Amino acid sequence: MDIRFQVTRPDPTIRPALQEKIDNLTKPKGSLGRLESLALQIGLIQQTLSPALRHPQNIVFAADHGIVEEGVSVAPKEVTWQQVCHFTHPQGTGGVNFLCRQHGFTLKVVDAGVDFDLPRDRGIIDLKVGRGTRNFLYGPAMTETEMEQCLAGGAKVVRQCFEEGSNVLSFGEMGIGNTSSSSIWMSLLAGIPLADCVGAGSGLDSAGIRHKLDVLQRAVNNYTGDGSPRDIIRWFGGFEMVMAVGAMLQAAELKMVILVDGFIMTNCILAASRLEPAVLDYAVFGHCGDESGHKRVLDALGAKPILNLGLRLGEGTGAICAYPIVESAVRMINEMDDFRSAEITKYF
Amino acid sequence: MDIRFQVTRPDPTIRPALQEKIDNLTKPKGSLGRLESLALQIGLIQQTLSPALRHPQNIVFAADHGIVEEGVSVAPKEVTWQQVCHFTHPQGTGGVNFLCRQHGFTLKVVDAGVDFDLPRDRGIIDLKVGRGTRNFLYGPAMTETEMEQCLAGGAKVVRQCFEEGSNVLSFGEMGIGNTSSSSIWMSLLAGIPLADCVGAGSGLDSAGIRHKLDVLQRAVNNYTGDGSPRDIIRWFGGFEMVMAVGAMLQAAELKMVILVDGFIMTNCILAASRLEPAVLDYAVFGHCGDESGHKRVLDALGAKPILNLGLRLGEGTGAICAYPIVESAVRMINEMDDFRSAEITKYF
Repeated sequence: MDIRFQVTRPDPTIRPALQEKIDNLTKPKGSLGRLESLALQIGLIQQTLSPALRHPQNIVFAADHGIVEEGVSVAPKEVTWQQVCHFTHPQGTGGVNFLCRQHGFTLKVVDAGVDFDLPRDRGIIDLKVGRGTRNFLYGPAMTETEMEQCLAGGAKVVRQCFEEGSNVLSFGEMGIGNTSSSSIWMSLLAGIPLADCVGAGSGLDSAGIRHKLDVLQRAVNNYTGDGSPRDIIRWFGGFEMVMAVGAMLQAAELKMVILVDGFIMTNCILAASRLEPAVLDYAVFGHCGDESGHKRVLDALGAKPILNLGLRLGEGTGAICAYPIVESAVRMINEMDDFRSAEITKYF
Repeated sequence: MDIRFQVTRPDPTIRPALQEKIDNLTKPKGSLGRLESLALQIGLIQQTLSPALRHPQNIVFAADHGIVEEGVSVAPKEVTWQQVCHFTHPQGTGGVNFLCRQHGFTLKVVDAGVDFDLPRDRGIIDLKVGRGTRNFLYGPAMTETEMEQCLAGGAKVVRQCFEEGSNVLSFGEMGIGNTSSSSIWMSLLAGIPLADCVGAGSGLDSAGIRHKLDVLQRAVNNYTGDGSPRDIIRWFGGFEMVMAVGAMLQAAELKMVILVDGFIMTNCILAASRLEPAVLDYAVFGHCGDESGHKRVLDALGAKPILNLGLRLGEGTGAICAYPIVESAVRMINEMDDFRSAEITKYF
């Protein structure tokens, strides 16, 4: 098995008509700033002058990481399953839950590889590839087969959303240890020095960060793979992260809008772009968090996130917070009239 | 008549309890960033651990400016009344309208001093103080009596909103020429060199900006008032701007949340703070726009706006775009549970 995605750039033919429509809305040209560029992007993705956002869903991929054995995270591994149980609880009192309610997102939670037997009555989508990855300090985190399983699993969840009528998805994660995988992906896939990619995660102090950097540097030194993006993704990845990569690629193939969350998900779309560069045309970057290095990888992708609220919770929270701005952009292009019909002096 | 407002700082006694509630929500401490500081601020304003936002309204004050005779704006004066007619049209196809619909804001539009007989069938609140200010290049823009009328008028509209059940208001403006008044307020009230306060407004080129600066510098040179905040506000103000100042002071007196829009409204709350410093405790800054100097005045106020989307439309659009983030903060503190009830290992 070797899963491939057919991600093509949106046809640019419609761009001048979109730009003209946006420029003739009753406002000084460019005066709605980011709303205008978002409307253009979504019009391009959907190939229409009247784009629409339908049935937004937030998909949280969860898994554990072998590298936590090396003491790279301040949070114990059990927090992964505890949080998964928490935000799939019927009461819905977790961080991601109130945001999903506020903005009308359906929440799907996927067990990509949590090291725990999760309850079966919570609607958790079971795509468990294993009980956490192997410790990549000593070898690849996952096998080729496991990587393919992840890519296929992520794609499957997205196809289900598509069939349910969604055309906009955000992705989030829960996985203690996954900033470590992200930092290495970022360093090796974007060519950024590892020291600039390593941060506090869920709350390391400076000694903890130094230790984490030391462990990750040794892991990179021990790497004996072929250096291709696929191999780097596999060797240092997490199950939930590779599943997100597959999900993003499938979403782009289906011409859906991808809302990108924080540090981890930014590195997932970086990885996805190394497999299929056109995936970036479908990405709306929701949030620049405080995790050290997040801004660096965003810059490497030429990405300008909508928000900068100092969030570092994950779970898709940064992407969902940005959703109303995306919705505003779509309303703007559909609900504002133009200078011809409004009879306002056009002075520019 | 000498209208005064009684603006007092929120009682800080509740702060430790608010902070403890926020810190014990099921997330790493501080990981919801700006949502946490907003929840704290609104809890303080409302003096409760369970704050709520009720009946948001956006009040747009509109007026004309004598200074436009000097060619300081690229837009002709008629755009003021045309835009007022436009966004009070029943079809609601203006820039501010779709945002009000999206976020459930009632839109109130106030004629503070538009140089036009506005239609009477649009629900425009008639508080017209005059048909535009006088040209402040040659003397004060308004009389003491007109200033008092503006402050009282703004306060009256806010009291009406309060009686209608609102506890959160955003303020916007429509007034060709009002970046000129704003730049001088900013320079004289915050002590920032005038050249750093003058920008493109609705679209001046660099020659236009040089001319605008020259006109405004001459106006400042010609100033013969007493240098007090009240006198500067009166001499260089616009009717809509002074009305916004009165509105903000009344809102703070009534302990309502004030959503501050872009460059003009930031200078209005600057002016309000020079009359009653505690008004800033009630202010949530929505947006940092691209107008030259906006960041400078925000810094002078110690303000950190929620958004930076490159908007420069006015009308309250930047403040309303930020509203869902404020709503997220309130949902966070009300809808998330804490570590005791969630049974998650607290590792920090």
